Amino acid sequence: MSITLENKTHGRYIGQSVKRLEDGKFLTGKGTYLDDLALEGTLHVALVRSLYAHARIVGINTREALQVPGVVAVYTAADLPPLYAPGSGGRDARVVRHPVLAQGMVRYAGQPVAAVLATSRASAEDALGRVEVDYEALEAVVDPLVALEDRTPVHPQLGTNRALERKTSGGDVAAAFATAHKVVGARLVQQRLAPTPMEPRGVVAAWDGAHEALTIWSSTQMPHDLRSEVAEALGLAENQVRAVTPDVGGAFGAKINIYPEEILVAYLARVLAKPIKWVESRSESFVATIHGRAQVADLEMALDPEGKILGLRGRVVADLGAYILETTLGNAPGTLLMLQGPYAIPAIEVELVAVYTNATPTGAYRGAGRPEATYYLERLVDIAARELGMDPAELRLRNLIRGPFPYKTLTGAKYDSGAYPETLHKLLELADYKALRAEQARARAEGRLLGIGLTTYVEITGYGWDTGGVRINPDGSALVFTGTSPHGQGTGTGFAQIVAERLGIPLERIHIVQGDTLAIPYGMGTAGSRTLSVGGSAILNAAEKVAEKVKRIAAHLLEAAPEDITLTEAGWGVRGTDKAVSLEQVAQAAYNPRKLPADLEPGLEGQATFTLKEANYPFGAHLAVVEVSRETGEVRVLRYVALDDVGPLVNPRLVEGQQQGGVAQGLGQALYEGIRYDESGQSHSTSLLEYNLPRADQMVWVEAHHGDTRSPTNPLGVKGIGEAGAIGATPAVVNAVMDALGIKHLDMPLTPEKVWRALRQELGR
Amino acid sequence: MSITLENKTHGRYIGQSVKRLEDGKFLTGKGTYLDDLALEGTLHVALVRSLYAHARIVGINTREALQVPGVVAVYTAADLPPLYAPGSGGRDARVVRHPVLAQGMVRYAGQPVAAVLATSRASAEDALGRVEVDYEALEAVVDPLVALEDRTPVHPQLGTNRALERKTSGGDVAAAFATAHKVVGARLVQQRLAPTPMEPRGVVAAWDGAHEALTIWSSTQMPHDLRSEVAEALGLAENQVRAVTPDVGGAFGAKINIYPEEILVAYLARVLAKPIKWVESRSESFVATIHGRAQVADLEMALDPEGKILGLRGRVVADLGAYILETTLGNAPGTLLMLQGPYAIPAIEVELVAVYTNATPTGAYRGAGRPEATYYLERLVDIAARELGMDPAELRLRNLIRGPFPYKTLTGAKYDSGAYPETLHKLLELADYKALRAEQARARAEGRLLGIGLTTYVEITGYGWDTGGVRINPDGSALVFTGTSPHGQGTGTGFAQIVAERLGIPLERIHIVQGDTLAIPYGMGTAGSRTLSVGGSAILNAAEKVAEKVKRIAAHLLEAAPEDITLTEAGWGVRGTDKAVSLEQVAQAAYNPRKLPADLEPGLEGQATFTLKEANYPFGAHLAVVEVSRETGEVRVLRYVALDDVGPLVNPRLVEGQQQGGVAQGLGQALYEGIRYDESGQSHSTSLLEYNLPRADQMVWVEAHHGDTRSPTNPLGVKGIGEAGAIGATPAVVNAVMDALGIKHLDMPLTPEKVWRALRQELGR
Repeated sequence: MSITLENKTHGRYIGQSVKRLEDGKFLTGKGTYLDDLALEGTLHVALVRSLYAHARIVGINTREALQVPGVVAVYTAADLPPLYAPGSGGRDARVVRHPVLAQGMVRYAGQPVAAVLATSRASAEDALGRVEVDYEALEAVVDPLVALEDRTPVHPQLGTNRALERKTSGGDVAAAFATAHKVVGARLVQQRLAPTPMEPRGVVAAWDGAHEALTIWSSTQMPHDLRSEVAEALGLAENQVRAVTPDVGGAFGAKINIYPEEILVAYLARVLAKPIKWVESRSESFVATIHGRAQVADLEMALDPEGKILGLRGRVVADLGAYILETTLGNAPGTLLMLQGPYAIPAIEVELVAVYTNATPTGAYRGAGRPEATYYLERLVDIAARELGMDPAELRLRNLIRGPFPYKTLTGAKYDSGAYPETLHKLLELADYKALRAEQARARAEGRLLGIGLTTYVEITGYGWDTGGVRINPDGSALVFTGTSPHGQGTGTGFAQIVAERLGIPLERIHIVQGDTLAIPYGMGTAGSRTLSVGGSAILNAAEKVAEKVKRIAAHLLEAAPEDITLTEAGWGVRGTDKAVSLEQVAQAAYNPRKLPADLEPGLEGQATFTLKEANYPFGAHLAVVEVSRETGEVRVLRYVALDDVGPLVNPRLVEGQQQGGVAQGLGQALYEGIRYDESGQSHSTSLLEYNLPRADQMVWVEAHHGDTRSPTNPLGVKGIGEAGAIGATPAVVNAVMDALGIKHLDMPLTPEKVWRALRQELGR
Repeated sequence: MSITLENKTHGRYIGQSVKRLEDGKFLTGKGTYLDDLALEGTLHVALVRSLYAHARIVGINTREALQVPGVVAVYTAADLPPLYAPGSGGRDARVVRHPVLAQGMVRYAGQPVAAVLATSRASAEDALGRVEVDYEALEAVVDPLVALEDRTPVHPQLGTNRALERKTSGGDVAAAFATAHKVVGARLVQQRLAPTPMEPRGVVAAWDGAHEALTIWSSTQMPHDLRSEVAEALGLAENQVRAVTPDVGGAFGAKINIYPEEILVAYLARVLAKPIKWVESRSESFVATIHGRAQVADLEMALDPEGKILGLRGRVVADLGAYILETTLGNAPGTLLMLQGPYAIPAIEVELVAVYTNATPTGAYRGAGRPEATYYLERLVDIAARELGMDPAELRLRNLIRGPFPYKTLTGAKYDSGAYPETLHKLLELADYKALRAEQARARAEGRLLGIGLTTYVEITGYGWDTGGVRINPDGSALVFTGTSPHGQGTGTGFAQIVAERLGIPLERIHIVQGDTLAIPYGMGTAGSRTLSVGGSAILNAAEKVAEKVKRIAAHLLEAAPEDITLTEAGWGVRGTDKAVSLEQVAQAAYNPRKLPADLEPGLEGQATFTLKEANYPFGAHLAVVEVSRETGEVRVLRYVALDDVGPLVNPRLVEGQQQGGVAQGLGQALYEGIRYDESGQSHSTSLLEYNLPRADQMVWVEAHHGDTRSPTNPLGVKGIGEAGAIGATPAVVNAVMDALGIKHLDMPLTPEKVWRALRQELGR
């Protein structure tokens, strides 16, 4: 740690597996989620959503709906100014933003067409079926490879379905493939996933007469961005909008976007001067919240006889869905950036095409581009090992980057620090890989389909800058302010540990304030594992400022020099003496100018920022052991070993929580999850009966390990753990299943039916 | 102004009569007062209040009340831990704090005895009469002069009704009176007044699960103090309590105190985990909110033949009511401190006795001690002029302090700056005093009772320190944070003018944030005319910090040196060139680290404090012209000229608003207002039918003038205008009435009946 800790309490808090401070309120039911907000006089919104994936709206008749008791109004696009959810892309992108309510056309099943306002949610929902929408159905395109052909335009005005075309290249790819000993290739599908947070989205907006601001509460990851976007959409100044996030029950990237419903609710609250509330139902969330992944890659890898990777080439097609939200165009470029992975690949040429389809917009979902890249590489490496007859661990070890760091990839990434071969070696040792292979051989001899799968990965985390604040109240208790805005990670506990360590305040006297644009000057929210490296460093800087002032006050009270003051067991004391004052005494003095040195302002608050100048690149190696049932095709994960190196840990317990949860989601993608559309663009995955999340009994307890390779990018040396599990687990599990089955490739999810059919094929072959 | 303004826009905002930015929301009904807060599931509190001024509670039967539909619970003291409203006094004081609910005894009519909680306010009020309280009545004492005799103890455990005894003295008083040419004296009563803000008090508390804090909304002047006191009373850390003031509809000092209801509601919200609301009714406010003034002074003044004041002596008895709230013991010492007034009095000896009575507690009300002192002096000076046969203006001029400043009084005050004789001369000139006297003579000749009354005064304002913050959002709009917490003064407009002037932001792009302990690090609220001198100076300091950063960013964008950047008509530009960037451009860059110099943190916010090291002493001279009807005794104020010197003005319109309103309240005390108790301690003033506020047609349009004597205590040079009118008007009007009637003294209020009876006596004499 480069935190300067000057006393014996070093590591008293940082590095400890402190229990989550947040959980008290959650376990006692005292948390406040969006739907818990209850303002008297609220009007509830329910949305008429398109039944068609692609249709012209011929007419909307709201008369009957208005007769439903409790219904106050029905809005269609005709009743609104032209309002859109924000969507962005580079200059090379063709961006069509999502209208708040459909403007004459619907382009995916589930697109909002009309908004019913009623005095209760039940009334609003009752009236939905009474809004008559006359559609003229059009041909829909849901397969991105078909969309590429531009026969069925999603947005005719663009002249193409292609929203973005990019290429990453470096090295002599043609030569690499011309001289290759072996070229392996596959079409690899990253199916559409539903992020499925425990709490779906929701938004409440109301005029706050005391602050003269529209207050918008939203289950979002990005309160400051929401503030700015709502202000812009409604033509307000940013000081006229206050965004607040209550407790947020999961998001996984899906709540980065500012959605049509948020702009709509804000607008209605402003024009109607009433509190307006919309809460997404579970079934709505399957069509109205972004989907993740949704790519098809056709890739080839060239190798020499020793298994050295010579080159990578091909094309990634990304399915954007019908409109561009804020993260829709972010995933696929991230995939391109990370396509070299942890490997020393000398030549790369991969094309990216991102296309519109008549489907729910896609966007950031845990990993957002990195899981896709890792999956492609790790599947190709395993396919190559199979074709070369090499052990997949050995093939990886021959190709892993050995430095020096920072290491620049052909794809434009700059890895900050790493220890890739060492990490794989350690994983193999932790898992006792040799013994596992021996066990596998024994099992096969018994006719059991045991498989071992590996992943080695590097990913990218952190961006931007953020604000931290530490305010010591007159009684010595502390409020810690952060511009990050978590959604269940328990990051506040880590922040409290940093402040406790630096200032000697007991954890239970520290409260974290987040998710309020009034209380926090600025913040970029929580996404991309930025929270600790950016937000935590900002808080550390703020605590540092407070510590400087504490020292000056303590020195004044103790009649000593500030440079002799240090944090001791007895409080803030004079080095080498037993003279000390408690932080409470310092705080009392801080609020009483008569007790302060003449040149010191009263109060005891520090605010600081931290800017992450370059990204962090966590890395790791995962191993899965699976067994496939010959009878049912069911896959059981028997063992899972994760070694993630995200730098030093502030709280190992929190890190392990992310590892367990991330692996669960990666395993979910590998085995269970997937949004299915039929050819007309109807989703067959609009409930938890149809969309299979992994159940507890399908999950394996992850043997979670970690490295400690510091990042030079931030004073904590940390990199971020949010995505690691979801990145590593999907290819590890799929590789293990293919290893068990002894076949080249099956697309996910590896459902019992699909595996069973494959087994039949294999057996019949 | 000592604000360093470097450009042509000097005075573009500061010094201008900008219209109140606050009024848009109020005039369109979009303000949010306490009673506008509506949280679903709120339980409403109604309070059973004592029918007796002094009684033992023998029993309380809540059974029937609990049968009332909607009633959820009835609390008595037996159901609570021992909770008290905070009350403080010096070490020499005998402080009995106010129990939240009566603990076996009631000591004034209206004291809270039990709390009914119901699902609606109506239900709670319906049940009040069904709570059976069995009282054993005791003898009550309501006259402070009787209470002095200690025959009827309010708090037997003290052994006396005297809560505080102090004396101020200086010079040789015995000699002054022994050698005096003339000694004048009188018993002067400052009657009890009800502050009567347009909005009575109210409080809502609820558990805020997202912030893990008890949030308490209160119509208070002191959110941070409320936060700390609620935390202490409930045994919480200060970071577990958030206090918020919605819009506050007047307070006049009465909402400085933390009242029993605020502690009670906070406690109930915590234990019941439900939103709890209590809103004071108008009739409740007459018994449950502090009363102001409530003093009886017996004073003598010694003069030489030329009218030079030689000495002042006597006793002030202050009526505290039954318990000590936070401001209860503050008024009377303030009266002692200001008893020298603007006069060069060489010898003073005045004793103060503050006594408990069986009446509503008293406390700070507009002026809080200064109006009393000024009234005593100004009445005595007029009585002396009458007895010496001198013109009262001339007598004043002979005695006004001529400096040098700072000027220390015998009573312990240190007047910062002043121009007392000049101010009286100017007032006489503005009013054309000579012509007025001539007109009076003519009127008298016609049998009309015209009177002219003068006041010269000095008062004390400002204390403590406060926080200011200026946050420029990415779009260039600004939030301005202040620890002051106004209650209708429009101080936000003045703050916005300071920020607009310093940073070049249009007023409509500035929003003021106040009254929220989460958003504002610390603040001492709004009281004692401290807002502009302390809060405004803090904001100026914060704006100064922002300006420094703006210069550095603008310099970077313009490739110039920061010291060459100045605020010009075109924006922030390079001195002597036409190169400039707008604040919006600077703000955009500030939030984008790539556009910033490497050594500059992103963000654009400045926080600062200002500590007022010594108090301010505004001063002035007022003149009232009245006519008394011989037939009805009715007094009409024909003309009122106020010359108040509070230093330079940031917004003359706001200052004049305070002058007009202050004079209205001073005139109200002189002529109309007064709480009346009968001998048993029952109040006969519990509605606006019985308690006569001045009506619009009884008010006179004040000819409001001002001086510009800077205070050296703060960078704005300002002193504060909140109390001036209420201080000056009462003696000016009473003096004018006595001048019209030609009699020595009548106690206030000078109702038609009282004046008519006096006229009969005079006529009959």
